[in-house]
Amino acid sequence: MSGTGREEALRARYGAEAPLDIAWNEVIAGLLAHRTVRAFRPDPLPAGALEALVAAAQSAPSSSNLQTWSVVAVEDEAAKRRLSEVARGQRHVVEAPLVLVWLADLSRLGAIGRDRAQPTDGLAYLEMLMVGVVDAALAAQNATVALESLGLGSVYIGALRNDPEAVAELLGLPPNVLAVFGHCVGWPDPQRPAAVKPRLPQDVVLHRGRYDPSLAQGPIAAYDAAMTAFQAGQRMPEVGWSGAALERVRVPGSLSGRDRLRAILERRGFGLK
Amino acid sequence: MSGTGREEALRARYGAEAPLDIAWNEVIAGLLAHRTVRAFRPDPLPAGALEALVAAAQSAPSSSNLQTWSVVAVEDEAAKRRLSEVARGQRHVVEAPLVLVWLADLSRLGAIGRDRAQPTDGLAYLEMLMVGVVDAALAAQNATVALESLGLGSVYIGALRNDPEAVAELLGLPPNVLAVFGHCVGWPDPQRPAAVKPRLPQDVVLHRGRYDPSLAQGPIAAYDAAMTAFQAGQRMPEVGWSGAALERVRVPGSLSGRDRLRAILERRGFGLK
Repeated sequence: MSGTGREEALRARYGAEAPLDIAWNEVIAGLLAHRTVRAFRPDPLPAGALEALVAAAQSAPSSSNLQTWSVVAVEDEAAKRRLSEVARGQRHVVEAPLVLVWLADLSRLGAIGRDRAQPTDGLAYLEMLMVGVVDAALAAQNATVALESLGLGSVYIGALRNDPEAVAELLGLPPNVLAVFGHCVGWPDPQRPAAVKPRLPQDVVLHRGRYDPSLAQGPIAAYDAAMTAFQAGQRMPEVGWSGAALERVRVPGSLSGRDRLRAILERRGFGLK
Repeated sequence: MSGTGREEALRARYGAEAPLDIAWNEVIAGLLAHRTVRAFRPDPLPAGALEALVAAAQSAPSSSNLQTWSVVAVEDEAAKRRLSEVARGQRHVVEAPLVLVWLADLSRLGAIGRDRAQPTDGLAYLEMLMVGVVDAALAAQNATVALESLGLGSVYIGALRNDPEAVAELLGLPPNVLAVFGHCVGWPDPQRPAAVKPRLPQDVVLHRGRYDPSLAQGPIAAYDAAMTAFQAGQRMPEVGWSGAALERVRVPGSLSGRDRLRAILERRGFGLK
């Protein structure tokens, strides 16, 4: 397997020193080249692309094969506009030809149980929300790998959780179904190219044998510097990482309304016991 | 792009009729060929494989780039044995040369906040557990794609949530860190090959424009038949899907102890507000 591009890929991904002796092939090169695409050409997806994405998503592992997820494919202009409003006006939600909404779906098993007059009391537990959220995320990530292999790009929209009830009303979601995140999909606009965003040094997230709770300040500072350089190159505010990240969790109001998520889920039928 | 193997891949994945005009390339073929591997050769991973998996994982999207996940790589025999006990004796947890434990990690941001005497009150909300769980799942799935591209195989172990406190003690996890699932990784044993497991018909999980709450009984029955055929081929109990799935959520006791997850998370420092 060729090492072509490995050093450059690692430098882009880590913005600094990186483990340069990693195993390498074309698939891994593709994964490391991931970038968040927020600028799309208006062209529609090629025929068979949506179906390929969903087949890839269904090929991801599912907890006990319960398949507690669904996805809604949104292409209608007015619907995309409404989703964009929930996401505080993010323009790419309208611009992307396709918006997938990935759902943690406990309603399907509930409906099968009702049809057969069998109890499904286990669905009312926080554990089952976790199962649905994990299932949906694994599925979505396989779809992302598939779409990037076709030359398409995408961005996840966690901001749909700013107002899950508005999303549920728009998409006709039954109780016990949560829109975990949206997913804008389309052809990247070559006029507005995206870049690979640096991540934390690998030693910060990879623990060997046991979790190392000591926070290595040196690596965090180095990563702040790498992110500041990245932001400068992208003409973004040069805020680094740690300060901006702390701002996102400073107070309940920093969560853009998502501090209401538990109450909303309870209203939407999730037991969360 | 070649259509070689597309029909066979779709037939294996859906066990029946399938959308046969999906977009196709080598990456999508690889994703559709996923199979859960529970039988491993004892051989260790190749050099640089773990680091490649983690680099791929870090290349997955992360909510607001908060990177609220970590992973522990477990290779020690005694530690794997203890993890296997938590997972009700699943033998592959001991047999696999590497067990990754994927963590929703809110402790890192908490620690940075403490170091800088800045509040992190937003961490105490259910929303942030969701962020950590989604981040960890997206990362893990990229690792799965990477490891399969190297010829390795794997299986996720949700059963670590049977006893998160035992896992936390074993791995030294600080408060506000949850082991979302384990992940056995190794070389598939060719003597005990795994098969592609059929999934629900695509129309059952893919909704166009709006969620369709009507449960199509025909497709569920067809899928039960496909799963029964799969189980027969694998010499597994021929129980189909829907009945077995309902059994997993019948009563709180069906959750293998995971009905205690909320109480455990609260004890482990998660606010869950």
